[in-house]
Amino acid sequence: METTKIGMVGLGTVGSGVAKLLLEHGDRIARQAGRRLELAEVVVRDVGKERDVLVPPGIVSTDLNRILNRTDIKTVVHLVGGLEPARTILLQLLEAGKDVITANKAVLAEHGPELFDRARELGRSIAFDASVGGGIPIITNISQCLSANHVESLTAILNGTSNFILTQMEEQEASYADAVREAQALGFAEADPTLDVDGSDAAQKLALLAHLAFGVRVHWKGIARQGIDKLDLVDLRFAQELGYRIKLLAVARQEGETLEMHVSPTLVKIGTPLAEVRGAFNAIRLVGDAVGPLLFHGLGAGQMPTASAVVADLIDTVVGRAAITFRTLELWSRRAVSLSEADHAHTTGRYYLRLTVEDRPGVMSEITGVLGRHKISIASVIQRESSDDSAASVPLVIITHTTTDGATRQALEEMNRLNAVRPGSVRMSIRD
Amino acid sequence: METTKIGMVGLGTVGSGVAKLLLEHGDRIARQAGRRLELAEVVVRDVGKERDVLVPPGIVSTDLNRILNRTDIKTVVHLVGGLEPARTILLQLLEAGKDVITANKAVLAEHGPELFDRARELGRSIAFDASVGGGIPIITNISQCLSANHVESLTAILNGTSNFILTQMEEQEASYADAVREAQALGFAEADPTLDVDGSDAAQKLALLAHLAFGVRVHWKGIARQGIDKLDLVDLRFAQELGYRIKLLAVARQEGETLEMHVSPTLVKIGTPLAEVRGAFNAIRLVGDAVGPLLFHGLGAGQMPTASAVVADLIDTVVGRAAITFRTLELWSRRAVSLSEADHAHTTGRYYLRLTVEDRPGVMSEITGVLGRHKISIASVIQRESSDDSAASVPLVIITHTTTDGATRQALEEMNRLNAVRPGSVRMSIRD
Repeated sequence: METTKIGMVGLGTVGSGVAKLLLEHGDRIARQAGRRLELAEVVVRDVGKERDVLVPPGIVSTDLNRILNRTDIKTVVHLVGGLEPARTILLQLLEAGKDVITANKAVLAEHGPELFDRARELGRSIAFDASVGGGIPIITNISQCLSANHVESLTAILNGTSNFILTQMEEQEASYADAVREAQALGFAEADPTLDVDGSDAAQKLALLAHLAFGVRVHWKGIARQGIDKLDLVDLRFAQELGYRIKLLAVARQEGETLEMHVSPTLVKIGTPLAEVRGAFNAIRLVGDAVGPLLFHGLGAGQMPTASAVVADLIDTVVGRAAITFRTLELWSRRAVSLSEADHAHTTGRYYLRLTVEDRPGVMSEITGVLGRHKISIASVIQRESSDDSAASVPLVIITHTTTDGATRQALEEMNRLNAVRPGSVRMSIRD
Repeated sequence: METTKIGMVGLGTVGSGVAKLLLEHGDRIARQAGRRLELAEVVVRDVGKERDVLVPPGIVSTDLNRILNRTDIKTVVHLVGGLEPARTILLQLLEAGKDVITANKAVLAEHGPELFDRARELGRSIAFDASVGGGIPIITNISQCLSANHVESLTAILNGTSNFILTQMEEQEASYADAVREAQALGFAEADPTLDVDGSDAAQKLALLAHLAFGVRVHWKGIARQGIDKLDLVDLRFAQELGYRIKLLAVARQEGETLEMHVSPTLVKIGTPLAEVRGAFNAIRLVGDAVGPLLFHGLGAGQMPTASAVVADLIDTVVGRAAITFRTLELWSRRAVSLSEADHAHTTGRYYLRLTVEDRPGVMSEITGVLGRHKISIASVIQRESSDDSAASVPLVIITHTTTDGATRQALEEMNRLNAVRPGSVRMSIRD
């Protein structure tokens, strides 16, 4: 059986997982690839660092040239995070004639067009299934398995950290701050979780998926996004009482020549598949015009799930499938489809509104008056007696019938200007 | 842009769907395949038959030789059902040098080794993602996207007809016979639904998936199977009362060197993803040692979902990916792994038992005595007062704690011999 030599840059959590699969399960991988994959060079920042995998010491160095200059290494796994030097290393690998497998969604979301154009010019391929959805092979599914479809919409839970925090808040009645600390202690959130909890990570992943599904070149910063970092436990409780869970949904939906895209906390009906996605799991629901609705549900992060996706890409690359896909799809090429951004003001749906209002007669009438003027009809209201007689204000929750994003936004602004309404009003869309 | 000519044998429901995609969405398919796919010859049994797609009349004939003899057609979609002439036609296509895409799981489950060996000898490929799971691309996912994994288990709802009937029974309180009639009226069941409702169809699909996931060559007739055709509405009601739905599950699970495989109605806990699979949907839950649990959920049958899978295979074939996969995986080759069949008697789990017993003192003690002798402990019991004073017998439902298949089977046999127990006892396993 023939042997193919593999290079790797980066030996962190995911890199160690990939090394484990290659070193400890070589026979299995050889059976799937029709050849043995030999980890021949590993480049790291710090050779002395302790790792949870035993890599033959002779192959580990800090010198990228040991990979760049070896002509017998044609395939390199790139597991460097962040933007730089990740981008530069990726370009160096391509220039040196290597096909690359990467799990770095940030560098692709930021520099995708440049990287993919360069790979094309050089006749090389970039495989990146591990960059979105962890172990869920969503990239290959969209770009290969569902290639007969026009994708109509994507609705996804793409950030495992946020979903873990939301599940903790809901199931343990933990505050946002406590849930973040718990996630950090268990390794589900980084020391600085900002990019996860503010929706940036989900927006980067959504930009990649939207490129594959709709052919558009969207920069992730152009996607309207709201994270979970301002969510209050009280909203999760009200949602549950109404039969919903709050999930950080990433949505891309084409209607005619416009594409609606956003990342936002959304009330999802309990019992529907997306509402049942717990903890660090991810899920992607896709609707294709031929296949209909299709749901993928699995671990969205973690060492071995992500390594599973990297090694699948590695096998695809060495057997030649990745090159074919890369060539035929012309990813991020100038052939990109142009869809205009949907005007969110016209997006229709049902909405959840929570206001903190003065506890006195006439307030409800003022508020329902505003809704009426915006032609928003009310599906249900929760207003409870204050448990504390001296409380000057109480929460008021309103669920609307189908209306528009614009109408609810304007109505809420108007309500916020009422004397009876305290600061901190909340508005979220509902998915039934 | 280059053009690739395609042949098709069979223009029934799925065939018409494939033709629609090729004829009405040619631009989209060309974008995904990097070339135009031209439907050049279609062979049918009856040229005059009315169809829901407009195929240029000049390309339709009843003469298979028009495809076999055309050297400019190298790729053929084979949508002929049943075993013969499906098998012979498939072999003729391979012998004539064509790569084949088929949706016929029956012919693969029955003649897979012969067909795949012959394709290999001739240097041809067979793509068959449409044969299992309809629109869910489960074949490509197992054989390509999850290739880094050792698959530990598959738990799946693979027969849409059975699932539709079960959903009707549960949600409409319909009897089995009424639900079958409803399924037939809506086109979800054939005039003779035997192979769907007796578990044969699910067993054929499970045999294909198990081959891909575990490398074993299992004939579907060797898989223990029980269908839904003997299910009583009363069991669905008791299950629901206890927090479960009854689903026809196909299970394959490796433990050490043994493989447990069966198809049977099972109580699945409400709120878990498989319990939420309704109507004609299918779902496959797979556990891989790297990726962890992964769930796929989509339409398991129907014209366009199945056509979606066929056209994806067609694109894979014309671009060359299918040939690579077929060559590297050596499907159904003699390299097959040998795992022994697990002894079901030792399979552990919780069980649902329903007996019809005489309504007199002492009966419960006799029955619990039998369970005690088999070391089966009881988790819960439902026995109601008879609503009819003159009723001589009442149902008794017992949920066990974890025990073995063998113990519950033997205990039930013993209970059935008691004078107080009427015929028609029911035993099902439980999935929490």
